[in-house]
Amino acid sequence: MPHIALPNLPGIRGPMAFRPETSKPLNELVEVLLCGPSTLTPGERELIATYVSSQNDCHFCQSIHGAIAAAHLDGDEDLVRSVKKDYLAADVSPKLKALLTIAGKVQQDGKKVTAEDVQAARAVGATDLEIHDTVLIAAAFCMYNRYVDGLATWQPRDEAMYRERGRMVAREGYIATTLTKAANPELVPELTRS
Amino acid sequence: MPHIALPNLPGIRGPMAFRPETSKPLNELVEVLLCGPSTLTPGERELIATYVSSQNDCHFCQSIHGAIAAAHLDGDEDLVRSVKKDYLAADVSPKLKALLTIAGKVQQDGKKVTAEDVQAARAVGATDLEIHDTVLIAAAFCMYNRYVDGLATWQPRDEAMYRERGRMVAREGYIATTLTKAANPELVPELTRS
Repeated sequence: MPHIALPNLPGIRGPMAFRPETSKPLNELVEVLLCGPSTLTPGERELIATYVSSQNDCHFCQSIHGAIAAAHLDGDEDLVRSVKKDYLAADVSPKLKALLTIAGKVQQDGKKVTAEDVQAARAVGATDLEIHDTVLIAAAFCMYNRYVDGLATWQPRDEAMYRERGRMVAREGYIATTLTKAANPELVPELTRS
Repeated sequence: MPHIALPNLPGIRGPMAFRPETSKPLNELVEVLLCGPSTLTPGERELIATYVSSQNDCHFCQSIHGAIAAAHLDGDEDLVRSVKKDYLAADVSPKLKALLTIAGKVQQDGKKVTAEDVQAARAVGATDLEIHDTVLIAAAFCMYNRYVDGLATWQPRDEAMYRERGRMVAREGYIATTLTKAANPELVPELTRS
């Protein structure tokens, strides 16, 4: 049961529909960070978001962003699972591993990121903009995760639902998906709680 | 020394000037949450932001938002200090104390907020919208704090600087202050590192 009376939509979509004034910048931020122009691929950025959400133990966020990441990575759900479990052993680039180390420290406390962590990322090709975006993605998901959990939102356990919506967001982006689907929940009856 | 090459501006203003695409939604979010229409006063909302930033031990954010809070509260810096130190003993309303309890749990982990915490806030007059905004303010400052600290931004120790800028933001709001001052750092030479 959510702590306040929210629309019957899963995860962050409930409070977003409840408070459109704040959902606008929240949606714009995730769109710029995860879908906007970047030298990091959408799959890499979604893996960072998924990893941070799993470290924060947020079921909804790690499930939906894990599904979006997989959709960007030819459906490779095993890769997503391996990044969450032990990214240093996962089949991802040395650069992404170094960025995930920075993201993991930001998740705990920004002050834990050291000059050595940043130097290690640069040594395997990370740019200042990539390091900036990694820090902000990690910080932003510390917000989204707390928003979703702090209101005790409805977080379905149905993997197929996340997989389907993950493909949709990977194809259309966050803002377009929200405008066409979440704002019209009758269009996606499988996502509403009857 | 910041971890990446940022403009010489204090705290969050460095990375915001570095990456305007993300600073736009970041600024809009704080403007809606802390300055927009609300049944919580701007002083109350800034106290929530200050308290969360102090729990996250972010020097820049607790200093600037503490200064903005004080500017909204007739310059009462002692009240700001007492909220940071022990809000249950501070001279604030029972409703704000109950909301600060929720904010403090969100700062640790959203899942720590209980139905009893929310019921206690309702019993002293908090509305669903006030509870929603408290959770989101607390979650958002877990982002801003990590963004500021994770990039090792320049965080001056000069209290007078925070006091002056705090009055400016309290008067003009975040977006207006950023547009007129931060975008033109030569207008505020005392805020740039020479």
